This record gives sequence, structure tokens and C-alpha cells, in this order.
Amino acid sequence: MTLEGKLLIGQEAVSGHSNPINAINPATNEILEPVYMGGTRADVECACELAETAFNTYRETSLEARAMFLETIASEIEGIGDELIERAMAETGLPRARLEGERGRTCGQLRLFANVVRAGEWLDVRIDPAMPDRQPMPRADLRQRHIGLGPVAVFGASNFPLAFSVAGGDTASALAAGCPVIVKGHSAHPGTSELVGRALQRAVKTCGQPEGTFSLLFGSGSEIGQALVADPRIQAVGFTGSRGGGNALMKTAQARPQPIPVYAEMSSINPVFLMPEALKTRGKQIAEGFVGSLNMGAGQFCTNPGLVIAVKGPELDDFIAAAAEGVRGSAPQTMLTPGIHDAYEKGLSRLSSNAKVREAAHGQVGESPNQCRAGLFVTKAEDFLTEPELQEEVFGATSLVIECADQNDMKRVAAQLEGQLTITLQLDDSDLPAAQALMPIMERKAGRILANGWPTGVEVCHAMVHGGPCPATSDSRTTSVGSAAILRFLRPVCYQALPEALLPEPLRDSNPWRVSRLVDGKRE
Amino acid sequence: MTLEGKLLIGQEAVSGHSNPINAINPATNEILEPVYMGGTRADVECACELAETAFNTYRETSLEARAMFLETIASEIEGIGDELIERAMAETGLPRARLEGERGRTCGQLRLFANVVRAGEWLDVRIDPAMPDRQPMPRADLRQRHIGLGPVAVFGASNFPLAFSVAGGDTASALAAGCPVIVKGHSAHPGTSELVGRALQRAVKTCGQPEGTFSLLFGSGSEIGQALVADPRIQAVGFTGSRGGGNALMKTAQARPQPIPVYAEMSSINPVFLMPEALKTRGKQIAEGFVGSLNMGAGQFCTNPGLVIAVKGPELDDFIAAAAEGVRGSAPQTMLTPGIHDAYEKGLSRLSSNAKVREAAHGQVGESPNQCRAGLFVTKAEDFLTEPELQEEVFGATSLVIECADQNDMKRVAAQLEGQLTITLQLDDSDLPAAQALMPIMERKAGRILANGWPTGVEVCHAMVHGGPCPATSDSRTTSVGSAAILRFLRPVCYQALPEALLPEPLRDSNPWRVSRLVDGKRE
Repeated sequence: MTLEGKLLIGQEAVSGHSNPINAINPATNEILEPVYMGGTRADVECACELAETAFNTYRETSLEARAMFLETIASEIEGIGDELIERAMAETGLPRARLEGERGRTCGQLRLFANVVRAGEWLDVRIDPAMPDRQPMPRADLRQRHIGLGPVAVFGASNFPLAFSVAGGDTASALAAGCPVIVKGHSAHPGTSELVGRALQRAVKTCGQPEGTFSLLFGSGSEIGQALVADPRIQAVGFTGSRGGGNALMKTAQARPQPIPVYAEMSSINPVFLMPEALKTRGKQIAEGFVGSLNMGAGQFCTNPGLVIAVKGPELDDFIAAAAEGVRGSAPQTMLTPGIHDAYEKGLSRLSSNAKVREAAHGQVGESPNQCRAGLFVTKAEDFLTEPELQEEVFGATSLVIECADQNDMKRVAAQLEGQLTITLQLDDSDLPAAQALMPIMERKAGRILANGWPTGVEVCHAMVHGGPCPATSDSRTTSVGSAAILRFLRPVCYQALPEALLPEPLRDSNPWRVSRLVDGKRE
Repeated sequence: MTLEGKLLIGQEAVSGHSNPINAINPATNEILEPVYMGGTRADVECACELAETAFNTYRETSLEARAMFLETIASEIEGIGDELIERAMAETGLPRARLEGERGRTCGQLRLFANVVRAGEWLDVRIDPAMPDRQPMPRADLRQRHIGLGPVAVFGASNFPLAFSVAGGDTASALAAGCPVIVKGHSAHPGTSELVGRALQRAVKTCGQPEGTFSLLFGSGSEIGQALVADPRIQAVGFTGSRGGGNALMKTAQARPQPIPVYAEMSSINPVFLMPEALKTRGKQIAEGFVGSLNMGAGQFCTNPGLVIAVKGPELDDFIAAAAEGVRGSAPQTMLTPGIHDAYEKGLSRLSSNAKVREAAHGQVGESPNQCRAGLFVTKAEDFLTEPELQEEVFGATSLVIECADQNDMKRVAAQLEGQLTITLQLDDSDLPAAQALMPIMERKAGRILANGWPTGVEVCHAMVHGGPCPATSDSRTTSVGSAAILRFLRPVCYQALPEALLPEPLRDSNPWRVSRLVDGKRE
């Protein structure tokens, strides 16, 4: 199809009237057509009104109808074919295989949520039957279910143009929860966004959902996003991006007369602890895995291993030497946008110019624009502990090794970490006691703890937690990846002594939706 | 026992060094001994440090040990005997029967949470087994459980000196979740608080829990409370009180480098919709029930019916006349504190002096200090819709009747309501279609919808939702009453490919805790 450069508001495609947005091919700095004129407050108003109208219908769709809608979105995205991959490649500089994988993940997670919807556990149906003869007071019949919070604003992420953008994890989980979604597309990949947005529009139509179930807006600055979050009809926000961006949205959300939850996934440096025995017996192999994880997607993952912690000594020296060799051999990779590349270079300079930090290696310097040269730096635990800026994320393929004097030093570093998405342990059997001592600290710092693997590559499944204490996310009580993400967009409602005719279907005695229920505290 | 007027920090009883606090018997304005010297920042520091230390031990208690601890607290509270009831009567002006009932509810909810802990559903264990041969990428073993957020600050409520104070719902649910608790006792009932606090201290000791599992602080202004919420070791806050108080705590919580959740239950006027047929066939009977609910506890319940909405006409006139008669016959009741009584009188004056509001009746005027005279006021829907201050809660036995022109007017009033804890319908069979039309609006406005009952009297059970959109509470995703309240103080952690020895017990293959688990998406 021909991209039209339009906003998608309900079933309409509308020309914006604000500042123009053009995607840039980061591999060439070429400007990509068409131009997307940004939306105005009137467009936000229109999308919110449609979403508000859609909510009461959409939130009461049957489990099967909602699940089929999610599956239809997946099919429609697949139906776009290679055009989607090519446009995404041009807009992001990401290679074909990565984007094909990401498309698979995007459609897979829509289908996962379809099954989550069908299973109905998210309704958390609870029934406490009436006890008319109870002394001293009778008990009324009480029933609980969960409903969607209301229309949700989703901000597309630059680094996952498919899996965390227009029809990504936040959108899929919000739609699964029964919430209409208004996406603010990322300005770096508007064409990809339009293609996916059109697929979503078609799915809405095919499945007979109310048109306000989905809209897609563009805007070059923060105005559209801020207006969305401030709109009284918006009831929750999903965001993946910078700490500054997340904090700005949280501020707006909290300043509303009715504050709303913001699920912002922001900043994580994903520490890796190299335990002594593992370092000794397979330091080189670990270095190899580490460099592979570091370079994945030019380091542009929220789970990129940005910090390595180990006890100083010949084993760590060997590890650093091996990792440095890997980093020196790292081919340059195109970053997502010129802005991200600039910020990365600034981050590298900040580390290079820090007197307490030494550069162990840097990767090959690219000849094309916006290419990431990998980086490996080393510092001492005592310096890391006294310089908070060394915990700041450098978004890209750079990592900092912390040399600790001993195990206690490692514990001190662990205790001073900010909140993280992940913490990784490289350990062998005889490292278990030392790892055990770190566990209570790690559990309080991170959403996911992993052993002898690498944090990049986030499985979309039921047990996944892609979350963690601030600043990793704004709300450690949830996850943005995996089936539990649906819980972010729900709230409980209790119905007391309601006539059967007024009870929502899943709460009726006959259990017509056949969902699991907690009856008088017992699971049925 | 002799009250000592001390702070309880861990297992110690400590003299405060800040401003003095004396309870006042609101029925007589008599000052009650002993004096409680408020805590200082050093006391906050000490309690937080103990709680932080206790957390890693307490959060890993077995299900049975934690449940028994909660049951021991209940037994210890019962063991105080009549001294507790008498002190609470003196400090609150509440009658014996109410306080005995409240003690039963307090101990009942501790025992309910003991059973919730034992059942283990709150752990939300999820296991996605490894798939080493999966193409194109193997899947690692992934397991999830929930852990406590960390130490929790609980603010005692004035209107529930037992059930929402030192060992009340917030404390019970936080302890159930594995979180140490620091209570800021309400200055209106420090003696009651000390008695319950000592019971908790004994339970901590008897059960061998770490001493920092519980502390009790006092403070006359906002300093201690604000210091608690700002302390980096505190990870969540439970509060029941005024909108201003809740907003101030939220502001502090959000300004922290790491923001934390505040569960504030603040303000609700609990609208009651009188549907036409019900009003016609049993208006007088409804009026009787309404006056009973209005007067319960001198109207000092968060669920007090402060708003009645119906279509104008002879039936509503009859209802108002009957309710007015009931209100005129209402005996004066002592309010909880002189401050609450003052605020109530100001609220009455605000309504009386509003030209758009007419007084239908007021209750008997008391001769003792701090007595509540019931109030019944009437206004028109068009005035209610244009004067937002008519939605402001008047804490006490006063209600405002809204005369609507027709059903559409009732819907307009419903749509303009702020968030509520409850909305009540009085309806008969032929009112069902009209009630059905209100349902979607009510579900978005309130945590609990009830039919042909009264909102006062909140059942502590599994299906209860004592929550609702702001300003009813600060977080509509939760409840502060009932077993689901435990979910407020938990967060998920994922363990990827961890050796069995590092896995928390409930996640091990053998399921030694015998809890329900979601394995590969299937419930076991």
C-alpha cells in the first residue's frame, strides 16, 4: 500500500496540521517520504472522545470475541508482508532477520494474550454467597470481577518498532484487558507505525469493534503526548523510553485532578555478577557470551548488560582481556536514530573523560552515519560507590567493569545499585553460597534474576517479569512483557446483592463464561 | 496494664521527645492520661532501620509461620480484654457494642489473612519450563513468584480505632504480604493504639519474628508521617483519612528519588439512586433504612450515604418527608474528636448558607460537647451539576437529596459524580431497565455497587472491594478491605535458569509449599 502520512483516528485517516515529521534512514541520513504532519489538540480530543465512547462496548465483549480480535490483528500484521519489514529496515537501520523475528514476537504476543483472555483468570471472579442467617448480622451476596481501567495511551518505543510500538506489548495487553488504545507513534518510524496502524484499523472493522477501540497519532514534540496523558478520558499510560521522558509523563499524570497510573519502562544497566569459580573456570567463554549480548541490536535493548561486577585478580584481568578483544573486533552497527547515536557518543565521552574510568577497548569505527562503536570501560568499586553518575545508562553497546577488592565489595556494589530490569549471575557450583548471599539484595533490586545466561532476549511467556524498582520502571508491581501485563489495566468492581439481571455475565450463578472462580475462598 | 505513653520501636518502649499528645474524651472534653510525647526523626530512623533489617527474614517466613503470627496477634488483642474496649470508648466516644463488634472484625480479618497466606494464591507462582530444543531459539526455564514490597508505613484512622488502626486492615494485609509495618498511630486514640501495639509486640516475640517487624510511632503534626513516607526504606503507604491528608502523603511519595505507592482511602459521598418503582412502592421503608444508615456511628463512615438521587415528584416528596421525620427524631451522638465535630459544623453551615440548597430537617441538638446533629438537605440536579462544591464530603450524619427532572437528569448526575467507594440502587423489578442503563456509568465511578441495601457495613471477605476511582482512593486498582488487599503490597520477581539451590522454596520442582501454580499457562 501507499503510505499516506496520516493520523488514524478511529476508522478515518486524517491529515495532521502541526509540525512535519519525516523518518530518516539512519544508515544513510536520507529523508524518507511521506511527511507526517503532527496532530493537534483537536486530534487528541477526537481520538479520546471516540475511545471513551468505544469503552463501554469494547470492555463488555465476550472472551471469544476479544480473543479473536487480537488474533485478527496478528493476521492482519502478517498480511502486510515484506513491505512492513522493508519499511522498518529503512526507518530503523535494524537488519531483516531481527525485524522478522520481532514481527514473529509481536504476533506471538497478540496470540498469547488472546489465550489469556480466553482463560479468563484475569477476571479474578470471586463470589461470597449470601448468609441470611448469620449472627449477629446476615451477609449479603458479594461478587467481584475486574474491568478495564478505561482508554489507555501507549507511547511507541524507538527500539522495538514492532514489538513495543503500535501493536506491541502495551497495546496488546491493554486491548486484552478491554481498554481502547490511543497510540502516540514514535517519530522515528512513522511509516512502520502507519502500516501496523492500518492493520489494526482493519481488524477493528472486520471484528465489528467500535471504531474508537484504536487510534494512532503522531506529534514531533511532547505536546501531543502530554495532551493525551492530561486528557480526563485517558485512564492509564504505557511508555518505554528515556528516564526523562517517563518522568515528564508521570508528572503530568500525577498533576491531574484524578491521577492515573503510568507504566513507564525507563532505565536499566542490567548488572552481571561474575562469581569467582565461574570466572576462573570459564572466564573466556563468559567473555564471549558477554560481548555477544553487549552487541546485540547495537546495544539498544533495555536489558543490555551495561555493568559487570567481579573481584579483581588475574582471572578478571583475563576476562577483561578476552572481552576487550571481542569488543575491538566488534563491527560497527547502525543505531536507530541520529539522536540516539549522538547521545551514545556523549555517553562514551563522559566515560572516557572520567579520570576514575579507563577504557579497555573500543569497537571498530564505522564509515557510515550513526554507527555504534562498542565500548568497554573499567573502574574500581570504591569509585563506582562514590560516583552516582557511573550508574547512568549509556544506551548502546557499552559496558563498565567494576573491579571489587573482595566479595564484600561486590555486596556493597549490589546494595548500592538503582532498580534494574535484570541482574545476571555467572556462577558454578562452588559459587552457590556466595550467590545465595546476594539473592536477597538482588530480589529487591530487579524484576528478573538469571543465571548463566544473558539478559538480552526477553521471553514472552507467563512467568516473565520485565519490570523492576524505579528507575527501571515507574511501578515495580507489574511487568510490561508476558501474560501478567494484562493486570496493569484492570480494576476490581464488587457487586452486592444485585439482581441476576444486573449482574455481569461472568458473575452469574450458572458461570456462563466457564471461568475459574473463588467461591467463599475456595477455588472452583 | 498501665499505659506508659511510649513509642514502641521494635521490642522497646521509648519515650518521645517531641510535642505532647493527649487523648481527649470527646463526650466530656476531659483530657486523658498518660501524655504521649511525639517521636522525632531519630525515632523514625530507628524504626525504619529495624524494619529494613527485619524484612529479609520476615518476608521468607513459611506460610504456616506467617499465618500463625497473624493468628497470634488476634489472640493477643482478644487477651487484652475489656481494658481495650473501655479505653477505646473513652478516646472515641463510640459505644461499647460498636467497639466490641469492631474488635471482632479486627481479629476476624487477621484470621482471614492467615488463611489467605496459607492458601498461597498470593504468591502467583508461574513456571514456564525450559524448552532446550525449541527453534529458532531455545527457551530458558522461567519461574515467577511475588515478594513483599518492603517495609510499609500505615497511618491509623480516626474512625476505626481498631479495624483501621494499629492492627487494622492495612497492617494485617501488609504483614500477610511479608512486609514489616511501622504504624503512625492516630493522635485521637493513643492509649488504644498502645494497647494494641503492645499486643503486636508480644506476638512478634512469641512467634520469634525479627523485632523490626512492627513499630508504633506517635507524632502530633505531620512531621513524623512525612518523614516516614520520605524514608528510602519505606516501600508503600496505607492511609485512611482526609483528602488533604492523603494528597500530602502522595506528593511526598512521588517526590522521592524512588516514588512509592500510596494507598489512600480519602473521600466518598456514596450516592444512593432511588429508582421510580421502588420509590413509589416502598418510599417510607427506604427512608427508614436510609436514616438508619445515615446515623450509624454518627455518620463517621467512609461509606456513609451522603447523596440521594431521585426524580422529583410526590413520591420523592413523601420520601423526603419521611426521611426528614427520621432525621428530626435522630438523637445526638458524640463525634470522634472535637476537630471532627468542628469540621462537621462547618460543613453543615456551608450547606445551610448555600442559596441553592434547602434544609429539610436537622436532628436533635446535643447538650454534651462534640455531638453530631443529623442533617438532611435538598437541592436541584441543575444546581448540583453546576456547583462542584456540593460534591464535597461532609464527614458526619448529613445527606443531600438531589431532585432530578427525569431519568436523563439522573444519568447526568451519575456521569458527573467524582470517584466513589460505593453506589447504591434502591430498585424494584420494573426499575431494571433504567438501572441497567446506569450500570456502565456506576461501574466506572465506584468500587462497589449495591442493590436494596445500605453502603455502611463493609463485609470483610474475598469479593469485597473497598476502593474506587480518585478521590475515593488514590489507586482504583486495589481494595483496602477484604482478602485481595494483600495484593497491594506485593511485586513479582522472575527467576531464569536458576540452580535449584538458589530458587525460593515455592518455586522448586517438588512444590514443597503445595501452592497453586500456573505451569506453561495451565493451572495446577
